[in-house]
Amino acid sequence: MLVGMDDPRWLSSQEQRAWRAHLTVHRLLSHQLDRELHEAGLSLNDYEILVNLSESPRHRMRMSDLADATVQSRSRLSHQISRMEAAGLVTREHCEDDRRGMFAVLTGLGWETIQRVAWDHVASVRHHFIDRLTADQVTALETIYAPIVDHLQRVRAGKAS
Amino acid sequence: MLVGMDDPRWLSSQEQRAWRAHLTVHRLLSHQLDRELHEAGLSLNDYEILVNLSESPRHRMRMSDLADATVQSRSRLSHQISRMEAAGLVTREHCEDDRRGMFAVLTGLGWETIQRVAWDHVASVRHHFIDRLTADQVTALETIYAPIVDHLQRVRAGKAS
Repeated sequence: MLVGMDDPRWLSSQEQRAWRAHLTVHRLLSHQLDRELHEAGLSLNDYEILVNLSESPRHRMRMSDLADATVQSRSRLSHQISRMEAAGLVTREHCEDDRRGMFAVLTGLGWETIQRVAWDHVASVRHHFIDRLTADQVTALETIYAPIVDHLQRVRAGKAS
Repeated sequence: MLVGMDDPRWLSSQEQRAWRAHLTVHRLLSHQLDRELHEAGLSLNDYEILVNLSESPRHRMRMSDLADATVQSRSRLSHQISRMEAAGLVTREHCEDDRRGMFAVLTGLGWETIQRVAWDHVASVRHHFIDRLTADQVTALETIYAPIVDHLQRVRAGKAS
Protein backbone atom coordinates (compact mmCIF):
# COMPACT_ATOMS: atom_id res chain seq x y z
CA MET A 1 0.00 0.00 0.00
CA LEU A 2 1.27 3.43 -0.91
CA VAL A 3 1.53 6.33 1.50
CA GLY A 4 -1.42 8.68 1.62
CA MET A 5 -4.07 6.21 0.48
CA ASP A 6 -6.41 7.29 3.29
CA ASP A 7 -6.26 10.89 2.01
CA PRO A 8 -9.62 11.87 0.43
CA ARG A 9 -7.79 13.30 -2.57
CA TRP A 10 -6.57 9.80 -3.43
CA LEU A 11 -8.88 8.02 -5.91
CA SER A 12 -11.84 6.12 -4.45
CA SER A 13 -12.10 2.50 -5.54
CA GLN A 14 -14.94 3.49 -7.90
CA GLU A 15 -12.80 6.24 -9.46
CA GLN A 16 -9.84 3.91 -9.67
CA ARG A 17 -11.94 1.26 -11.45
CA ALA A 18 -13.17 3.82 -13.99
CA TRP A 19 -9.65 5.12 -14.62
CA ARG A 20 -8.16 1.63 -14.95
CA ALA A 21 -11.02 0.59 -17.27
CA HIS A 22 -10.22 3.53 -19.55
CA LEU A 23 -6.51 2.64 -19.55
CA THR A 24 -7.09 -1.08 -20.04
CA VAL A 25 -9.59 -0.68 -22.88
CA HIS A 26 -7.18 1.61 -24.64
CA ARG A 27 -4.20 -0.69 -24.24
CA LEU A 28 -5.98 -3.88 -25.19
CA LEU A 29 -7.66 -2.21 -28.13
CA SER A 30 -4.49 -0.52 -29.44
CA HIS A 31 -2.68 -3.83 -29.11
CA GLN A 32 -5.40 -5.67 -31.04
CA LEU A 33 -5.84 -3.02 -33.77
CA ASP A 34 -2.08 -2.74 -34.16
CA ARG A 35 -1.82 -6.51 -34.54
CA GLU A 36 -4.54 -6.59 -37.17
CA LEU A 37 -3.01 -3.69 -39.14
CA HIS A 38 0.37 -5.41 -38.94
CA GLU A 39 -0.94 -8.02 -41.36
CA ALA A 40 -1.23 -5.16 -43.90
CA GLY A 41 2.29 -3.95 -43.04
CA LEU A 42 1.11 -0.90 -41.05
CA SER A 43 1.21 0.19 -37.42
CA LEU A 44 -1.67 2.01 -35.74
CA ASN A 45 0.47 5.19 -35.89
CA ASP A 46 1.01 4.76 -39.64
CA TYR A 47 -2.73 4.29 -40.08
CA GLU A 48 -3.61 7.49 -38.18
CA ILE A 49 -1.20 9.50 -40.29
CA LEU A 50 -2.55 8.05 -43.55
CA VAL A 51 -6.14 8.83 -42.46
CA ASN A 52 -5.28 12.41 -41.55
CA LEU A 53 -3.53 13.02 -44.88
CA SER A 54 -6.27 11.28 -46.90
CA GLU A 55 -8.90 13.57 -45.36
CA SER A 56 -6.92 16.77 -46.03
CA PRO A 57 -7.13 18.97 -49.15
CA ARG A 58 -4.63 17.83 -51.80
CA HIS A 59 -3.70 14.95 -49.44
CA ARG A 60 -1.16 17.04 -47.56
CA MET A 61 -0.68 18.60 -44.13
CA ARG A 62 1.91 20.84 -42.54
CA MET A 63 4.14 18.74 -40.26
CA SER A 64 3.19 20.96 -37.31
CA ASP A 65 -0.54 20.46 -37.94
CA LEU A 66 -0.04 16.72 -38.37
CA ALA A 67 1.86 16.59 -35.07
CA ASP A 68 -1.07 18.35 -33.37
CA ALA A 69 -3.69 16.15 -35.06
CA THR A 70 -1.94 12.94 -34.00
CA VAL A 71 -0.85 14.31 -30.59
CA GLN A 72 2.89 13.72 -30.75
CA SER A 73 6.04 15.79 -30.63
CA ARG A 74 7.45 17.12 -33.91
CA SER A 75 10.65 15.12 -33.45
CA ARG A 76 8.77 11.87 -32.93
CA LEU A 77 6.56 12.60 -35.94
CA SER A 78 9.64 13.37 -38.02
CA HIS A 79 11.10 9.89 -37.29
CA GLN A 80 7.73 8.33 -38.06
CA ILE A 81 7.47 10.18 -41.40
CA SER A 82 11.02 9.11 -42.33
CA ARG A 83 10.04 5.47 -41.86
CA MET A 84 6.85 5.96 -43.89
CA GLU A 85 8.82 7.80 -46.59
CA ALA A 86 11.18 4.82 -46.84
CA ALA A 87 8.11 2.58 -47.28
CA GLY A 88 6.89 4.85 -50.11
CA LEU A 89 3.66 5.87 -48.32
CA VAL A 90 4.37 9.61 -47.96
CA THR A 91 6.82 12.24 -49.16
CA ARG A 92 7.95 15.56 -47.71
CA GLU A 93 7.62 18.82 -49.65
CA HIS A 94 8.63 22.38 -48.84
CA CYS A 95 5.72 24.78 -48.30
CA GLU A 96 5.58 27.26 -51.20
CA ASP A 97 4.76 30.24 -48.99
CA ASP A 98 6.98 29.38 -46.02
CA ARG A 99 10.55 28.28 -46.74
CA ARG A 100 11.03 26.79 -43.29
CA GLY A 101 7.76 24.85 -43.30
CA MET A 102 7.38 21.29 -44.55
CA PHE A 103 4.35 19.34 -45.74
CA ALA A 104 3.82 15.61 -45.41
CA VAL A 105 2.11 14.44 -48.63
CA LEU A 106 0.34 11.16 -49.31
CA THR A 107 1.81 9.25 -52.29
CA GLY A 108 -0.21 7.18 -54.76
CA LEU A 109 0.86 4.07 -52.87
CA GLY A 110 -0.17 5.69 -49.56
CA TRP A 111 -3.62 6.47 -50.98
CA GLU A 112 -4.05 2.93 -52.35
CA THR A 113 -2.92 1.53 -49.01
CA ILE A 114 -5.38 3.51 -46.89
CA GLN A 115 -8.24 2.62 -49.25
CA ARG A 116 -7.28 -1.04 -49.03
CA VAL A 117 -6.95 -1.26 -45.22
CA ALA A 118 -9.53 1.28 -43.98
CA TRP A 119 -12.47 -1.03 -44.40
CA ASP A 120 -10.98 -3.87 -42.36
CA HIS A 121 -9.74 -1.44 -39.73
CA VAL A 122 -13.17 0.15 -39.30
CA ALA A 123 -14.73 -3.32 -39.15
CA SER A 124 -12.31 -4.09 -36.28
CA VAL A 125 -13.18 -0.87 -34.44
CA ARG A 126 -16.85 -1.77 -34.84
CA HIS A 127 -16.37 -5.39 -33.75
CA HIS A 128 -14.16 -4.71 -30.73
CA PHE A 129 -15.62 -1.41 -29.53
CA ILE A 130 -18.70 0.22 -31.11
CA ASP A 131 -20.88 -2.89 -31.40
CA ARG A 132 -20.35 -3.61 -27.69
CA LEU A 133 -22.03 -0.32 -26.76
CA THR A 134 -25.70 0.64 -26.84
CA ALA A 135 -26.64 3.76 -28.83
CA ASP A 136 -27.07 5.60 -25.50
CA GLN A 137 -23.60 4.57 -24.39
CA VAL A 138 -22.10 5.84 -27.67
CA THR A 139 -23.74 9.22 -27.02
CA ALA A 140 -22.69 9.11 -23.34
CA LEU A 141 -19.03 8.55 -24.27
CA GLU A 142 -18.99 11.64 -26.44
CA THR A 143 -20.68 13.72 -23.70
CA ILE A 144 -18.30 12.42 -21.05
CA TYR A 145 -15.15 12.97 -23.08
CA ALA A 146 -15.87 16.28 -24.84
CA PRO A 147 -14.98 18.53 -21.85
CA ILE A 148 -11.87 16.45 -21.10
CA VAL A 149 -10.66 16.78 -24.71
CA ASP A 150 -11.37 20.51 -24.54
CA HIS A 151 -9.44 20.89 -21.27
CA LEU A 152 -6.45 18.85 -22.46
CA GLN A 153 -6.24 20.72 -25.75
CA ARG A 154 -6.13 23.97 -23.78
CA VAL A 155 -3.35 22.53 -21.59
CA ARG A 156 -1.44 21.47 -24.71
CA ALA A 157 -1.85 24.93 -26.23
CA GLY A 158 -0.54 26.49 -23.00
CA LYS A 159 -3.94 28.09 -22.24
CA ALA A 160 -4.69 26.01 -19.11
CA SER A 161 -2.72 24.04 -16.55
CA MET B 1 -13.53 10.40 -48.97
CA LEU B 2 -12.77 6.71 -48.67
CA VAL B 3 -14.56 4.02 -50.64
CA GLY B 4 -17.49 2.38 -48.92
CA MET B 5 -18.46 5.31 -46.70
CA ASP B 6 -22.12 4.94 -47.68
CA ASP B 7 -22.11 1.35 -46.44
CA PRO B 8 -24.14 1.04 -43.21
CA ARG B 9 -21.33 -0.94 -41.60
CA TRP B 10 -19.12 2.16 -41.80
CA LEU B 11 -19.24 4.22 -38.57
CA SER B 12 -22.02 6.81 -38.30
CA SER B 13 -20.82 10.31 -37.48
CA GLN B 14 -22.05 9.82 -33.90
CA GLU B 15 -20.08 6.58 -33.59
CA GLN B 16 -17.06 8.17 -35.18
CA ARG B 17 -17.19 11.09 -32.74
CA ALA B 18 -17.35 8.69 -29.77
CA TRP B 19 -14.46 6.62 -31.09
CA ARG B 20 -12.31 9.66 -31.85
CA ALA B 21 -13.12 11.15 -28.43
CA HIS B 22 -11.87 7.97 -26.77
CA LEU B 23 -8.68 8.00 -28.86
CA THR B 24 -8.06 11.71 -28.38
CA VAL B 25 -8.61 11.68 -24.62
CA HIS B 26 -6.21 8.82 -24.31
CA ARG B 27 -3.51 10.42 -26.45
CA LEU B 28 -3.72 13.85 -24.90
CA LEU B 29 -3.84 12.40 -21.39
CA SER B 30 -0.93 9.98 -21.93
CA HIS B 31 1.07 12.82 -23.41
CA GLN B 32 0.34 15.09 -20.45
CA LEU B 33 0.89 12.42 -17.75
CA ASP B 34 4.09 11.28 -19.46
CA ARG B 35 5.33 14.87 -19.55
CA GLU B 36 4.59 15.38 -15.85
CA LEU B 37 6.27 12.07 -14.87
CA HIS B 38 9.26 13.01 -17.01
CA GLU B 39 10.11 15.69 -14.45
CA ALA B 40 10.63 12.81 -11.98
CA GLY B 41 12.72 10.92 -14.55
CA LEU B 42 10.04 8.33 -15.35
CA SER B 43 7.89 7.48 -18.36
CA LEU B 44 4.24 6.46 -18.05
CA ASN B 45 5.32 2.89 -18.88
CA ASP B 46 7.91 2.94 -16.09
CA TYR B 47 5.24 4.19 -13.71
CA GLU B 48 2.78 1.42 -14.58
CA ILE B 49 5.44 -1.23 -14.01
CA LEU B 50 6.46 0.27 -10.66
CA VAL B 51 2.80 0.39 -9.54
CA ASN B 52 2.19 -3.23 -10.53
CA LEU B 53 5.30 -4.43 -8.69
CA SER B 54 4.60 -2.27 -5.61
CA GLU B 55 1.10 -3.80 -5.29
CA SER B 56 2.36 -7.39 -5.60
CA PRO B 57 3.41 -9.70 -2.73
CA ARG B 58 7.14 -9.34 -2.00
CA HIS B 59 7.23 -6.58 -4.65
CA ARG B 60 7.78 -9.05 -7.46
CA MET B 61 5.95 -10.45 -10.48
CA ARG B 62 6.67 -13.08 -13.08
CA MET B 63 7.68 -11.41 -16.32
CA SER B 64 4.80 -13.15 -18.14
CA ASP B 65 2.24 -11.87 -15.58
CA LEU B 66 3.73 -8.37 -15.76
CA ALA B 67 3.47 -8.43 -19.57
CA ASP B 68 -0.22 -9.39 -19.25
CA ALA B 69 -0.93 -6.77 -16.58
CA THR B 70 0.63 -3.98 -18.63
CA VAL B 71 -0.66 -5.33 -21.98
CA GLN B 72 2.58 -5.60 -23.93
CA SER B 73 4.60 -8.31 -25.61
CA ARG B 74 7.23 -10.12 -23.57
CA SER B 75 10.01 -8.87 -25.84
CA ARG B 76 8.94 -5.24 -25.45
CA LEU B 77 8.64 -5.67 -21.68
CA SER B 78 12.09 -7.24 -21.60
CA HIS B 79 13.64 -4.14 -23.22
CA GLN B 80 11.70 -1.91 -20.85
CA ILE B 81 12.88 -3.88 -17.80
CA SER B 82 16.50 -3.69 -19.03
CA ARG B 83 16.27 0.11 -19.13
CA MET B 84 14.69 0.19 -15.65
CA GLU B 85 17.33 -2.21 -14.36
CA ALA B 86 20.05 0.14 -15.65
CA ALA B 87 18.31 2.97 -13.76
CA GLY B 88 18.38 0.87 -10.56
CA LEU B 89 14.57 0.70 -10.22
CA VAL B 90 14.11 -3.07 -10.65
CA THR B 91 16.15 -6.26 -10.81
CA ARG B 92 15.54 -9.64 -12.43
CA GLU B 93 15.61 -12.86 -10.41
CA HIS B 94 15.21 -16.50 -11.42
CA CYS B 95 12.04 -18.17 -10.11
CA GLU B 96 12.94 -20.74 -7.46
CA ASP B 97 10.41 -23.31 -8.66
CA ASP B 98 10.76 -22.77 -12.41
CA ARG B 99 14.29 -22.57 -13.84
CA ARG B 100 13.13 -20.96 -17.09
CA GLY B 101 10.92 -18.34 -15.39
CA MET B 102 12.09 -14.87 -14.37
CA PHE B 103 10.73 -12.39 -11.84
CA ALA B 104 10.94 -8.62 -12.08
CA VAL B 105 11.58 -7.33 -8.55
CA LEU B 106 11.24 -3.78 -7.22
CA THR B 107 14.49 -2.44 -5.68
CA GLY B 108 14.68 -0.14 -2.64
CA LEU B 109 15.19 2.77 -5.03
CA GLY B 110 12.18 1.63 -7.10
CA TRP B 111 10.02 1.57 -3.97
CA GLU B 112 11.20 5.02 -2.84
CA THR B 113 10.58 6.34 -6.35
CA ILE B 114 7.00 5.09 -6.63
CA GLN B 115 6.19 6.44 -3.14
CA ARG B 116 7.64 9.81 -4.10
CA VAL B 117 5.88 10.20 -7.46
CA ALA B 118 2.55 8.39 -6.92
CA TRP B 119 0.95 11.26 -5.10
CA ASP B 120 1.65 13.82 -7.83
CA HIS B 121 0.66 11.35 -10.53
CA VAL B 122 -2.70 10.59 -8.91
CA ALA B 123 -3.27 14.32 -8.41
CA SER B 124 -2.73 14.73 -12.18
CA VAL B 125 -5.15 11.90 -13.01
CA ARG B 126 -7.68 13.57 -10.72
CA HIS B 127 -7.09 17.05 -12.15
CA HIS B 128 -7.11 16.10 -15.84
CA PHE B 129 -9.68 13.29 -15.81
CA ILE B 130 -11.66 12.27 -12.71
CA ASP B 131 -12.57 15.76 -11.46
CA ARG B 132 -14.02 16.59 -14.90
CA LEU B 133 -16.61 13.81 -14.53
CA THR B 134 -19.75 13.69 -12.38
CA ALA B 135 -20.09 10.73 -10.01
CA ASP B 136 -22.67 9.26 -12.42
CA GLN B 137 -20.24 9.56 -15.31
CA VAL B 138 -17.51 7.79 -13.33
CA THR B 139 -19.93 4.92 -12.74
CA ALA B 140 -21.07 5.01 -16.40
CA LEU B 141 -17.49 4.69 -17.66
CA GLU B 142 -16.95 1.54 -15.66
CA THR B 143 -20.27 0.07 -16.88
CA ILE B 144 -19.51 0.98 -20.49
CA TYR B 145 -15.98 -0.39 -20.48
CA ALA B 146 -16.33 -3.55 -18.40
CA PRO B 147 -17.75 -5.75 -21.22
CA ILE B 148 -15.18 -4.37 -23.70
CA VAL B 149 -12.30 -5.19 -21.34
CA ASP B 150 -13.79 -8.64 -20.83
CA HIS B 151 -14.11 -9.23 -24.59
CA LEU B 152 -10.61 -7.98 -25.38
CA GLN B 153 -9.03 -10.07 -22.62
CA ARG B 154 -10.74 -13.14 -24.10
CA VAL B 155 -9.37 -12.19 -27.54
CA ARG B 156 -5.89 -11.78 -26.06
CA ALA B 157 -6.16 -15.17 -24.35
CA GLY B 158 -7.22 -16.73 -27.68
CA LYS B 159 -10.72 -17.52 -26.32
CA ALA B 160 -12.58 -15.13 -28.66
CA SER B 161 -11.97 -13.47 -32.02
